Formats: sequence, structure tokens, C-alpha cells
Amino acid sequence: MTERKRILSGMRPTGRLHLGNLHGALDNWIQLQQQYECFFFVADWHALTTEYATPGQIRENTWEMVIDWLAAGLDPAQSTLFIQSDIKEHAELHLLLSMITPLPWLERTPTYKEQLQQLDQKDLSTYGFLGYPVLQAADIVIYRAHGVPVGKDQLPHVELTREIARRFNFMYEREVFPIPDALLTEVPVLPGLDGRKMSKSYGNCIFISEPEESVKDKISKMMTDPQRIRRNDPGDPEVCPVFAYHKLYSSPGQVADVARGCRTAGIGCVECKQILMHNVLSRLGPIHERRLKLERETDRVREVVLTGNAAARKEAALTMAEVRKAVGMS
Amino acid sequence: MTERKRILSGMRPTGRLHLGNLHGALDNWIQLQQQYECFFFVADWHALTTEYATPGQIRENTWEMVIDWLAAGLDPAQSTLFIQSDIKEHAELHLLLSMITPLPWLERTPTYKEQLQQLDQKDLSTYGFLGYPVLQAADIVIYRAHGVPVGKDQLPHVELTREIARRFNFMYEREVFPIPDALLTEVPVLPGLDGRKMSKSYGNCIFISEPEESVKDKISKMMTDPQRIRRNDPGDPEVCPVFAYHKLYSSPGQVADVARGCRTAGIGCVECKQILMHNVLSRLGPIHERRLKLERETDRVREVVLTGNAAARKEAALTMAEVRKAVGMS
Repeated sequence: MTERKRILSGMRPTGRLHLGNLHGALDNWIQLQQQYECFFFVADWHALTTEYATPGQIRENTWEMVIDWLAAGLDPAQSTLFIQSDIKEHAELHLLLSMITPLPWLERTPTYKEQLQQLDQKDLSTYGFLGYPVLQAADIVIYRAHGVPVGKDQLPHVELTREIARRFNFMYEREVFPIPDALLTEVPVLPGLDGRKMSKSYGNCIFISEPEESVKDKISKMMTDPQRIRRNDPGDPEVCPVFAYHKLYSSPGQVADVARGCRTAGIGCVECKQILMHNVLSRLGPIHERRLKLERETDRVREVVLTGNAAARKEAALTMAEVRKAVGMS
Repeated sequence: MTERKRILSGMRPTGRLHLGNLHGALDNWIQLQQQYECFFFVADWHALTTEYATPGQIRENTWEMVIDWLAAGLDPAQSTLFIQSDIKEHAELHLLLSMITPLPWLERTPTYKEQLQQLDQKDLSTYGFLGYPVLQAADIVIYRAHGVPVGKDQLPHVELTREIARRFNFMYEREVFPIPDALLTEVPVLPGLDGRKMSKSYGNCIFISEPEESVKDKISKMMTDPQRIRRNDPGDPEVCPVFAYHKLYSSPGQVADVARGCRTAGIGCVECKQILMHNVLSRLGPIHERRLKLERETDRVREVVLTGNAAARKEAALTMAEVRKAVGMS
């Protein structure tokens, strides 16, 4: 029997999870856990890199996130689910890796300057924000992960992790860390209600935990093809966010039907949205049911995390013993 | 009864302690412990900021340092002696403080660019070296220290710690950290054997643990007033490193005698050095005796550190509970 390869991934608890997160990451995690030994963590220390001035929601978001995970189908019997800040070893390894990480590597990270500009309403000229990739490297290598599922935009971070891991192994002349691979994953991109990228800061999200009435309301107000003004105007489904949702939530037959109906003005936007509502709610229904149950079982959720934390801590401690030996601090 | 104010200071275990360290810091610590509640630590993580490429000696230096401390007169019954890397909370607080520390504060630290230049044979353009003052701030505030004994050159670091502590208190709207004061201490400056600053990298040190024969040998080869070439030439004690040592090791009467003898050529350099040798060895004798004993009592030394670690950890844990509450992570 070959051992399953180990995967690590995390999410920052900066707010409630939305359908973009569900299809862009969580669904993929749920797939991965069948095939790999998975470590999934709430990256609450990472949330601080941008939310340090108003961290009040991080704790609450953390627990809501774990509930979303479980409700969506992450299985604690298969995967290790844990909270970053409960595993203090991440901070120790972050400190040790900081000693060997050249400043220019961080300064030239493509995402660094991009984010400084994008999030320009926040003061991100901090030491911690610059060191984000060092903490990320620590997160990954402390579990000796073989793979990190990422989207294209995250590739430079994994590359940096690989460079830091290689530099550590080279400098201390032993293979403490396996060099992790990026698992590039094609995930469907779900636009926001207004057709832009779904993002909390745009206010165009449907949340995983969104109540049924609210889902209906949001879908009914969704942007459609702006050229289709009257019911009898034919529309272009390819420019309509509602159609993008159909492709993800509706059966192939339905997708073909609404596309044809739109182009021929055979179906109105209201009717088209009714079909979508039904399908979105069918998908979210079982998640909401499990969510409702989990919200009442706070002890069980806590237990899942405590068990995950203990398993993660054990792995992290094993690695740190090797790390301390390598740097002559054991 | 008023509570004693709390002092924190550390030394980097980058090599054996020399007489410059003894008079420049350790003697002062021994004074302070009478008056203050003192926390003294081996700053082994700090040693890594410059020694990361060759950390092999740090562990050994750590234990030699503790032995020097005890032999010189630090009293574990009065002071808490501990090892930084054994208190993982420093790393956690370092990470949390990194989130709120503006990059420019670090980049403009006067000592930063100075050291980059001075230590130009080492590659110090690392993330960890830039963050040195953040780790130092964590070291200080995690024990809620009121004072930090420093020389003038270290003042900017304490000022930075004060700014970081103030920023944390302000941002999270509670007085988690007292703002520490710099305890500016006038300490005698002992030159190296060649008249330059005593420094391991100059190879001009007498070590605290230096054996008697070696002390004699080094003093006999010490630089003297270069203008005094023959025995009958009068000399100028103020430019002679040997005389600087006399001022620290010899009685006022002896100091006056050798000064007069030097100026009048009434005493030769060899004779002058004999007097110094005797006085240096009288001072080092009891330290060496205690050192010899401590070297045989490794269990006792270990016990001192374990006890100190436990006391430090307890204080650090108390602070971290407040810190985590403040940043909403408890």
C-alpha cells in the first residue's frame, strides 16, 4: 500500500463564506479529501495581516467557517481540520524561516505590490504584511505537505515556499522539508450578483449560509444582459451573470433551454431566474440543513476542531524537533 | 511594601563572554538584581539573525554563557534566568506585533543600516534581520518590563519598543503593555588588547573563562603607548590600553603610582603589566573557581535554567492571555 500524499490548504476567516468560495475552493477540498491526506486550516493569523486594525470578527468568523466547511461536506474523519493560531509551532517556524528569507524575495513577490494597491484603503505597509509569504511557507512545510491546491494567482506564493524550503534544506545540509508542489486546479469562476468578481468588498455575494428568502431576493435582483430591456427583446446569455449561475447549478438540458429561450425571447428573465433559484436552493438545502444541526451542536464542532488541532500539533511538533536540530537549537 | 520594578535584559550567545561584556553589562546586571525584579535571558533566537548560516555554536555558547553569568555573580534566587527559545510565546508575540509594526519604523532604525555595513561579510538582507527590533520588543513587553538597561547605542531600539507597545495599546484600546523606560547606564569601557573596542571579531579579547596562563600571556603582549620605545622613554598613560585596565582593576593608589611611573619612566611596561596581571587575576580568580565548580555541576546549571524558564513562561503566558484577548483571538 502506498501512503497517500499530503495536501495542505487554508482559508482566511475575514467574513462569511460565499458561493465563490464554495465553488472556487471548498468543493475542490471535498474532492481532494478522497484522494489525499488533507490538512485544512482556518488561517486566522493570516487574517490579521490585513484586519489587524479591526480584528473583532475573526473569532466569530472562524467558527462560522468551520461550520460552513462541515456543512458543505468536509469530513473530519478523513481530513484534519484545525485553527492556525492554536498551533503555536507555526509562529516559531515563521520566526526561524524569517532568518533565512532574503528581503528581496518578499519585496518582489508579484502579489505584494498588487495587494498594496488593491487594498489601498488599509495601511498595509507593515512588517507582518510583507512577511505573509514567510508565514505561508511555515504553514505548508511544518506539515511536510507534498501539494498545495492553488489557483493561478497563488502560484508565486507556492514558488516562494519552495525556494524557502530549498534554502533551509541546503543551508542546514539535510532534507528537513519536502519541496511542495502546486496543485493547479481548474475551478469554475462564479461571478457576483452584478457580474463582477464575487467579493465581500463589492457587496455582491450570496453566502453559503444565506437564508432561503434572502437567496431568492438576491437572485431576483441579479443583473442580467443590459441590452435586453423588454420581455420581447432577445438576450445574449453569454453576457448574463444569471446564465453563468445556470451553468453551475442547472442540468445540461435546462442550460440549453434557458440559453435558447433567452436568445429567442422565448423565456423572460423572471422565469429564467425562477429556475435558477430552485436549483441554487436545491444545492444549498442539504447544506443549510446540516448547518442548522451543527449550529445546535457547538460541542461537536468544538470537538472536531480540538481533535484536528491535536493531530496537527503532533505533526508540527515532529517537524519542529527536526528543525531545531537542524539549526542547532535542540 | 512597594513592588520592585521589573527589568529585562538579554545577551546573544554568539561566543564566549569577554571582560568587555563583564564590565559593560554583567557587572551592571549584578548590581540591578539587588534593586529590581530582574529577568535575564540568553537571546539565542537573536543570535540567529546574524549567525543563521553557521548556528552550530549557539547551543554550546548558551550553556557557557549561563555558567559565566552564575560564576560572575548572577543569583538565580534573586533573578529569573532563562533561554529565549524555550519560551515559545516570544515567537507568537513577535508574529502578532509584526502585524502592527510599520515597515518604515524598521527601515529607519539607525542601527539597522549601520549594522548592514559593519557586518558586510555576512548576508544580512534577510526578513529576520530587519525584524530584529520587533523580536526585541516582544522580548521586553511580554514580561511587562518597566525598564531596560542599555547603553546609548541601544536607545533607538528601546524607543522603537516603546512606540510598538504604545501602538498596540492604542489600537486595541487597552493598556496591555506598560511602556518600558530605558535605564541608561554609564559603564566603564574596557578597550581590547590592541586599544580598539574589545570584540570577538577583532581577536583582541580576554575572556571571562580565560585560563590564568593565557591571561598573563595576553596582558604581556598588550599594546602600550607606541611612543614609548625604550625603557627610559617617558610614556603617556592616557594613550596606553594597559593603563585603561589599571583604572578598572587596580587600587587608586596603584593607579596613581603607575601613571606617575609611566610619565617619569620610573616604571617599565613589563613591571606595569605585572601589577595589572596580578590584579586582573585576583578579580577573575573567584569567578574561575566558581566556574570550575559549575562546570562539574551540569545538573545544577540545567536546574537553574529549567526553573527560570518555568517562571518566565508563566509570566509570558499571563501576558499572552491578555494579548490574545486584545486581538480577539482567545
